[in-house]
Amino acid sequence: MNEAAQLMQRLDRLGEFTAEPGKLTRLFLTPEHRAALEQVRTWMEQAGLATHVDGLATLVGRYESDPPGAPALLVGSHIDTVRDAGRYDGNLGVLAAIQTVARLHGEGRRLPFAIEILAFGDEEGVRFPTTLSGSRAVAGVFDPATLDLADADGIRLGDALRAFGCDPSRTGEIARTGGRAHGYVELHIEQGPVLQDAGLPVGVVTAINGATRFLIEVRGRAGHAGTVPMGLRRDALCAASEMVLAIERQARGTPDLVATVGMLSALPGAGNVIPGRVTFSLDIRSPDDRERETAISAITSVLGEIARRRHLDVRLERTYDEPAIEAHAGMRRLLGEAVAASGYRVLELPSGAGHDAMAIGAVMPMGMLFLRCRDGISHNPLESITEEDAGIAVNVLTRFLTQFDPTSTRPAG
Amino acid sequence: MNEAAQLMQRLDRLGEFTAEPGKLTRLFLTPEHRAALEQVRTWMEQAGLATHVDGLATLVGRYESDPPGAPALLVGSHIDTVRDAGRYDGNLGVLAAIQTVARLHGEGRRLPFAIEILAFGDEEGVRFPTTLSGSRAVAGVFDPATLDLADADGIRLGDALRAFGCDPSRTGEIARTGGRAHGYVELHIEQGPVLQDAGLPVGVVTAINGATRFLIEVRGRAGHAGTVPMGLRRDALCAASEMVLAIERQARGTPDLVATVGMLSALPGAGNVIPGRVTFSLDIRSPDDRERETAISAITSVLGEIARRRHLDVRLERTYDEPAIEAHAGMRRLLGEAVAASGYRVLELPSGAGHDAMAIGAVMPMGMLFLRCRDGISHNPLESITEEDAGIAVNVLTRFLTQFDPTSTRPAG
Repeated sequence: MNEAAQLMQRLDRLGEFTAEPGKLTRLFLTPEHRAALEQVRTWMEQAGLATHVDGLATLVGRYESDPPGAPALLVGSHIDTVRDAGRYDGNLGVLAAIQTVARLHGEGRRLPFAIEILAFGDEEGVRFPTTLSGSRAVAGVFDPATLDLADADGIRLGDALRAFGCDPSRTGEIARTGGRAHGYVELHIEQGPVLQDAGLPVGVVTAINGATRFLIEVRGRAGHAGTVPMGLRRDALCAASEMVLAIERQARGTPDLVATVGMLSALPGAGNVIPGRVTFSLDIRSPDDRERETAISAITSVLGEIARRRHLDVRLERTYDEPAIEAHAGMRRLLGEAVAASGYRVLELPSGAGHDAMAIGAVMPMGMLFLRCRDGISHNPLESITEEDAGIAVNVLTRFLTQFDPTSTRPAG
Repeated sequence: MNEAAQLMQRLDRLGEFTAEPGKLTRLFLTPEHRAALEQVRTWMEQAGLATHVDGLATLVGRYESDPPGAPALLVGSHIDTVRDAGRYDGNLGVLAAIQTVARLHGEGRRLPFAIEILAFGDEEGVRFPTTLSGSRAVAGVFDPATLDLADADGIRLGDALRAFGCDPSRTGEIARTGGRAHGYVELHIEQGPVLQDAGLPVGVVTAINGATRFLIEVRGRAGHAGTVPMGLRRDALCAASEMVLAIERQARGTPDLVATVGMLSALPGAGNVIPGRVTFSLDIRSPDDRERETAISAITSVLGEIARRRHLDVRLERTYDEPAIEAHAGMRRLLGEAVAASGYRVLELPSGAGHDAMAIGAVMPMGMLFLRCRDGISHNPLESITEEDAGIAVNVLTRFLTQFDPTSTRPAG
């Protein structure tokens, strides 16, 4: 069987480790997580990797350097899933990295740096009120207070880790900072439609978008739909509609920035009553923090103008703020060269979703390769990639690893 | 006590006949309806009116003509309320008419036509799944099949009428068509802000608006708020926002027409998901049926254009349609003359809400006088009028009645 077919078969097989028959649901530190981890460990060992599970349940497979003991290039993704998930989100990055190392191993080839494949268990953040604990530990920023957070059944993260066979008192030893790693690379499905739209199998990530969320409230005046003439209305929904369009216009005018009003509620919510109050959400993301803040300022200003002109009140509450994490320039260049050498145009794009690369990219050079997925669908059983694209991903990743130059990610000077 | 103070005191007193202490709730054919009816009957008889309760529980008070037996001018409104109602909606029209007749009676004055005051019991339509049964019977269009409709406790309208002491088998005798009445006049609070905005206590109604309601569905494509670039979105909420504003623009451009989107629901309704589907209500009202239909055509067309331009689907479902009922030209003229003679500018305005006058106006000359209410608030305990305005209403109504010329409402030729 060729590599791509084997990869697709393994992705299908891994998709069978689930809490719910007929659906893929694999949460952090559950029996199905353990079973999936053991299956991945078997494939790692077959590919010549020496494995261990760290204090935060990350499965680590090390492909030793020649000479042995050199710092590693980290390659990873996650094997936990959302509820009723697709098979490729996370799992693709781990299994494709194993295929890549298997190829080197089959050729008896060692590199001057080690390769460590990391299979994280807590990327989706579904079970505990925290996320990225494994990758934060690798970045050296895991907060031990997190161990006291409990899941919906009251089980604390620390206890769940111990029951899983991990020693959470030693999470400090997980960090790969201080020269222990050259950087971190992650292959992941795009979870968006850009590559499909461009007709390309892979793309190079420029940055993981920073994000700001707002809850916005517009207060006008409710009234009888029949008896209040248009000129005497303070219709909160008409004002909110103008705001939604102003937000869309602002985002369309800023490259790589996206803004979304996903929730909107008009009150009192009766067909014969003019809405007196509307609340809506706003989610703004950009690979460039300054552009995000500039857009937020512009939006705040135009929302105020709309409210003033319509004699209503608007109030914005900032509920979430996360800065963008840029991919390392050297990683981007090397990934782009691997894409070009494989015969494809190099398309660079931001990542709108969060990844383990976000936590690690804050402390060491980070690069991400995106693979085309059908219609951008993710977090859904309809998530789909082609076998041909899977093969291309393995080829590009292998080319990247074999041509990786540790000096390219060293800080200048 | 002067007339206006007495009217206000009686309105307060009538507001105490309720099913819920501390709130005014008086539904059709309940014990509190009966108690309120008996109180109103007492006031009617004190004012020289001969009373009876008809087959649909309408309290009728007749002030005989001189010579006796002449056809009547009908003056009415309703004494049922919504739940947690105000004191003036309906009740004002009945009690002000009694004050007017009391003045004639006090002066020993008879008119060449009779005056019949009608206190309807089923205008709000809260208890049974029907409304305007009393005024429909006066118009000769009451459908006896309605008697089989049941309230939430399974009590049929016919049985509730019998328990109230009415004989629903004789509803056919209630009709005042065929020359038995010269027309119908109703005084009612405006339930809108137009008179307050114009600084006028009273206004003359041009027509009771016709109304059409739609349920509108926009289908776009849901997607991840972070990963789908603005240019590749089919955001159903952005499209719906454009539609809401197009509807507002169309209504603003058409005098006396109002259009309201009171309900809007965006799905799936998560802050980090682009809305793939939006449903919203549309309520369009106008005193002119052709203008309403013209606006509907224009709105249907522009909604289709917005959907096409944004590559989404839009579907409109017409769920309700009621034609406008025009006030009689002679009634309007006489009411306007009474307003002008009382020293106020004559402001004509449509009625956006439905009234008993709608049922009766379909078969005989109808006129309505609106009284200013504070901030247009109605169907709410905050409903409010001033004693001064109440006095003006009684004066205008008295002037109208005493100057009423039955020939003015006869069909021409």
